[in-house]
Amino acid sequence: MSKNLILRIASAAVLVPIILALLFQANYTVFASFISMIGALAGFEYSAIVLGRKGFLSRFYFALLSGLVAASVAFFPVFHYGPLIILGLIPVAGPMAFMFDTNNNDKSSRNAAFLSAGTLYCGGLVGFIGLVFASPDNGRFWVLTLLAGTFMGDTAAYAFGKLFGRHKLAPRLSPGKTWEGSLGGVVGTTAAVAICKFFFLPELDWIEVPLLSAPLSLFCQVGDLAESMLKRAFGVKDSGKIIPGHGGLLDRIDALLFGAPVVFLFTLLT
Amino acid sequence: MSKNLILRIASAAVLVPIILALLFQANYTVFASFISMIGALAGFEYSAIVLGRKGFLSRFYFALLSGLVAASVAFFPVFHYGPLIILGLIPVAGPMAFMFDTNNNDKSSRNAAFLSAGTLYCGGLVGFIGLVFASPDNGRFWVLTLLAGTFMGDTAAYAFGKLFGRHKLAPRLSPGKTWEGSLGGVVGTTAAVAICKFFFLPELDWIEVPLLSAPLSLFCQVGDLAESMLKRAFGVKDSGKIIPGHGGLLDRIDALLFGAPVVFLFTLLT
Repeated sequence: MSKNLILRIASAAVLVPIILALLFQANYTVFASFISMIGALAGFEYSAIVLGRKGFLSRFYFALLSGLVAASVAFFPVFHYGPLIILGLIPVAGPMAFMFDTNNNDKSSRNAAFLSAGTLYCGGLVGFIGLVFASPDNGRFWVLTLLAGTFMGDTAAYAFGKLFGRHKLAPRLSPGKTWEGSLGGVVGTTAAVAICKFFFLPELDWIEVPLLSAPLSLFCQVGDLAESMLKRAFGVKDSGKIIPGHGGLLDRIDALLFGAPVVFLFTLLT
Repeated sequence: MSKNLILRIASAAVLVPIILALLFQANYTVFASFISMIGALAGFEYSAIVLGRKGFLSRFYFALLSGLVAASVAFFPVFHYGPLIILGLIPVAGPMAFMFDTNNNDKSSRNAAFLSAGTLYCGGLVGFIGLVFASPDNGRFWVLTLLAGTFMGDTAAYAFGKLFGRHKLAPRLSPGKTWEGSLGGVVGTTAAVAICKFFFLPELDWIEVPLLSAPLSLFCQVGDLAESMLKRAFGVKDSGKIIPGHGGLLDRIDALLFGAPVVFLFTLLT
């Protein structure tokens, strides 16, 4: 077993119980605050990809705005004005942060656009996990379903890819991915959703299992590719190194980011 | 008188009565729909700056999303979920639009970021005009104050700059601007707000006139510079040519975009 794999398993062994404890012991306020903090951390990592590791002040500002965006979504049930304020704040705060910062209009514009887009990507999407938690019935188990569906999909995609992978999926975005792995992802996500349905979500019909897992798996996989595209564009391999053996936070949650609004929409519609 | 100035005046002579008629005759639904349409148009123009004039499908998609963002803000009083949905939609729709589109990760990422940021810039900020219209007392006159404050500020800045301009304000972003012109902008905006207060907004105290006009003028001028930065970054002179003599729609509303959330916040707090 490689040293990295041991680290990976050790990290998971520490983190998974902490996350489960938070998920099942914390009340809504604590959980939503935790999610906002994750949004800020993700924003801090994203800013390193886009701006480089220098410019701590800009990166801090970026993280702060990401955290605010995450909070506006996660706390939406108690403060309906949050996302509205964000829609006024971000497109103004983005350009203002950079327009007097560099000597290059091209770079300033690019930084401003990536800041505005990035706070939505890191903060807004993460915030939906808090919103799923707040859903009237069984919110905690819906979050569990989201987490399990995403991570089992990821793992199954990796395993299927290793075993049967032949046909490249999107060589430019992520050269290792294959259609066989992608199919494995659908299988893994569906299995996870089915298990969650069986044990925790009796209100879910069996027919709804594929209706949820198909779009969930699709968006998770697209989310994974989207982060790869971003990293490749900026010539970065890992988004960070906050989780030993796993790389950065964004590398771990890239699929989750696109999956969260899907599960929220599903809980809203059913 | 140059041909361009005649065109400019003629356009204004046609457009101003139409806008005033809309402002004072249309009901909230019609006005908010009009604003959403302006958001879509602005998005269509913005996309030409960022993507070039080819790629009609991408540009249409961009305009559609911008219009949706504008509508989510303008119709917030009747549908509180709008901005929340936008925060889930835009960061997913941005990357998905471009990740399979080009053969270049750098370009795809950049386009995705500018799409996400641009729909907020064009749509989100324009939407606040609709929100100001909806404010419980005198919404129509608040919009009039916003419009008058912005355009009188613009005009006074231009005149002061021509007459007294000496010290460059931000040569990289917009070489023609001077500190003297900027001061003129504050004077123009303050005069406009004072006139609107005197005739239409008795509930505004005199002391509140500078409290509104100072931030309004500041944000309008920053908004003007932000659009200049964007155009310069992409080597574009006018954002479009939809208004004869005035250039593009974005060129006309760039200051208004940053001013709209300021007036909304002011009406909310007073």
